Amino acid sequence: MNHRIILTALFLLSCNLMFAQKEDSTMLRKIFDEALTNGACYENLRSLCKDIGPRLSGSDGAEKAVKWGQEVLSKIADTVWLQPVMVPHWVRGEKESATVRLSDGSTIPVDICALGGSVGTAGKTVSAEIVEVFGIDELEKLGEEKLKGKIVFYNRPMEPRLISTFEAYSGCVDQRSSGAATAGKFGAVAVLVRSMNLRDDDLPHTGVQRYSDDVKKIPAAAISTNGAKMLSKKLREDKQLKVDLVLSCENLPEKLSYNVVADIRGSLYPDEIILVGGHLDSWDLGEGAHDDGAGSVHSIEVISLFQALGIRPQRTIRCVLYMNEENGPNGAKEYAKQSLENNWKHLAAIESDRGGFSPRGFSIDGTENNKFRTLEQIEEWQDLMAPFNLRYLDIGFGGVDIGYLRDQNVPLIGFVPDSQRYFDFHHASNDVFEGVNKRELELGAASIASLVYLLDKYGLKTDAN
Amino acid sequence: MNHRIILTALFLLSCNLMFAQKEDSTMLRKIFDEALTNGACYENLRSLCKDIGPRLSGSDGAEKAVKWGQEVLSKIADTVWLQPVMVPHWVRGEKESATVRLSDGSTIPVDICALGGSVGTAGKTVSAEIVEVFGIDELEKLGEEKLKGKIVFYNRPMEPRLISTFEAYSGCVDQRSSGAATAGKFGAVAVLVRSMNLRDDDLPHTGVQRYSDDVKKIPAAAISTNGAKMLSKKLREDKQLKVDLVLSCENLPEKLSYNVVADIRGSLYPDEIILVGGHLDSWDLGEGAHDDGAGSVHSIEVISLFQALGIRPQRTIRCVLYMNEENGPNGAKEYAKQSLENNWKHLAAIESDRGGFSPRGFSIDGTENNKFRTLEQIEEWQDLMAPFNLRYLDIGFGGVDIGYLRDQNVPLIGFVPDSQRYFDFHHASNDVFEGVNKRELELGAASIASLVYLLDKYGLKTDAN
Repeated sequence: MNHRIILTALFLLSCNLMFAQKEDSTMLRKIFDEALTNGACYENLRSLCKDIGPRLSGSDGAEKAVKWGQEVLSKIADTVWLQPVMVPHWVRGEKESATVRLSDGSTIPVDICALGGSVGTAGKTVSAEIVEVFGIDELEKLGEEKLKGKIVFYNRPMEPRLISTFEAYSGCVDQRSSGAATAGKFGAVAVLVRSMNLRDDDLPHTGVQRYSDDVKKIPAAAISTNGAKMLSKKLREDKQLKVDLVLSCENLPEKLSYNVVADIRGSLYPDEIILVGGHLDSWDLGEGAHDDGAGSVHSIEVISLFQALGIRPQRTIRCVLYMNEENGPNGAKEYAKQSLENNWKHLAAIESDRGGFSPRGFSIDGTENNKFRTLEQIEEWQDLMAPFNLRYLDIGFGGVDIGYLRDQNVPLIGFVPDSQRYFDFHHASNDVFEGVNKRELELGAASIASLVYLLDKYGLKTDAN
Repeated sequence: MNHRIILTALFLLSCNLMFAQKEDSTMLRKIFDEALTNGACYENLRSLCKDIGPRLSGSDGAEKAVKWGQEVLSKIADTVWLQPVMVPHWVRGEKESATVRLSDGSTIPVDICALGGSVGTAGKTVSAEIVEVFGIDELEKLGEEKLKGKIVFYNRPMEPRLISTFEAYSGCVDQRSSGAATAGKFGAVAVLVRSMNLRDDDLPHTGVQRYSDDVKKIPAAAISTNGAKMLSKKLREDKQLKVDLVLSCENLPEKLSYNVVADIRGSLYPDEIILVGGHLDSWDLGEGAHDDGAGSVHSIEVISLFQALGIRPQRTIRCVLYMNEENGPNGAKEYAKQSLENNWKHLAAIESDRGGFSPRGFSIDGTENNKFRTLEQIEEWQDLMAPFNLRYLDIGFGGVDIGYLRDQNVPLIGFVPDSQRYFDFHHASNDVFEGVNKRELELGAASIASLVYLLDKYGLKTDAN
């Protein structure tokens, strides 16, 4: 009898699970259908890229983007507000050029751009011999004797053998971020850094670099991969060649800007927040389409899809359009500070900042205590996600902006699209709307919305809050 | 004692398995490293696209492509030979145009192209009213009365809700392949078919269409998606509008062409063949870069990677560059015929004909008897493939060319790259070398080579031969 009761209970339980699974699968299907047929994210991206365009922190574009985000979200969210934050204000200026001057007097122009935060050349031309290195550690060995008065040319390429291009990026971005600070220590007069790009082309890729307070600030520029190859080749033939560098960029006083935050209030647990975010600022060279227009419109679209489908979430769904990820991230720090002060309880935070490419899945981050448990729970939804080609679920990086919530024990989740072409566009002038495929972008938004739906419905059994 | 022996045996077995797994994982890593650093497939694709270009069966381009394939393979394979096959010879001719003529006398040009195999308009302009339909089945209901003397405009779009764009293609390609044959039956004078493209753009996409022997052959053209939308809108406003259609295409007598076949001879089981193939012919509008230059250079690269890494296979690895997939597939039929006559034993046949996009995995095909067993075995290699983002393994379509080996009980395997952007290029003038990403192409070749390596090493326990 007892045995029969257990069997009956198990049967009913499994029916129940099957029903829930069917219901979830139907809802995910609806989310994808809506995104692929009536979704707004592609048109939102067009507007962000074409009506506003580049939006580096402190620029007019960034200011317009904040208003744009506020307006778009006001139409779909329950509440929208701005979170003030002071941001750097760096401007590229009118002039930037580099010319290789060979010993025989002939010259070759090369494609460069100033790195974000770089000082300019003070209205002059910096002209110096080149020391080519393949990593920051080489500078210590070369020392001041070999480096003083020279332009250091960092030429370590991204490692093509790494399947994840983000790993390849991590493996050489130190040249860009602290190359000038290190070279300045040894008396170098400027640095040229090979663009973080796996392709051979003529586009210089900018990105943030930071000085040390105790070292002279020297101009820093990115050189295209083709330019780097050419320069390296010429150096083998002509060690005395010089490069003339002109940059008119400068750092202006900080400006007031804003994170844009929007909520759909939870019906049952309004104090539990599921955050989904991207960053609204972009570099100044392109239109910030993949980086991170895509993440911004993905995040907006989650709100939009919930509303369009009449999904009333139990928890509060919060869209955060972060300001100043690129050369901050002051927006992320401010949001985390506010979270701490207001004792916001985040069930999870999801970030989309790897472009608008075809979705692969999610990478799970957080504290050592919670991330494995988060992964385990999300893996339970594997069968629901597989029909949408979301087959990648693993421990990995969540995102720069949500990363500041780690200390508050928030489970962090990174949206993972295909990474192969990301660095073809990253921080370069070709990161424009036309480089984003409509379907791939829409699939991304639906993928994130699906995960938010499941997180909202089932919660997470982590010790997050 | 017995217990201890079993435990020891199990321990040794598991050590052995772990060792094999480690060895395989190292070899797969080597294959990917080689493809990503010294691989030739991207340069081969450049050569095929730029030195030769379009290569429709029967064209000079196709003839050059055969020589090209033979030359490239001669440098890397043990043996290369040509397999003669008669192929259709259709030419587009100089003229193709369509103009919408509104009742008020104004005209609008639209972007069209003749469908492969279409007859021309015999030096005249076909001018007729339009009947818009959304599927072939509508014609039966409309009947001769409504269709006679009209141009039938097939306007069913690809279904955007389907995650696999190939499913969306299958769902409406009948309009293209048999639209003219069906409309001709009801006395229509021509057909316009909405391009098989999920994007809105101005590019007409060609593709094969086939007449019935017992029905009058009428001209058939593809219209761009933007053109189709415009025409549909204008028709709602002006039912009497006409379209003027001019096509100068024609069918010429069949020509002799060739499949290019190349082997690395197996060291232990030379009679067991692992086939890997793509098709060498392409449509005439672009350069056939994704379709199927990518599959051709993938297949060549498998041979190349085995040789570069000194992998001496146990079985014979055969690369087949099929001729005439697009408007045949006579090459595939001929190969299958030869296989039957010569009693070739294929352990498996792999096809790459879905473009040079980022790899997702493999779809397993074959007879009802063998395909599930093939899948089960390949799933055992899941953990080896996952680090390379090969996470998709399922029953599905193998490929058009290898499909003709199904009757010979050959396990069929389709290489599955990401499908989202494939139909942006498919059969259109933008399917050129520049649309293929170097890394994505190389990863595809390495993925296929890895599977070939495992198939060669472990065989398949199917009843294939």
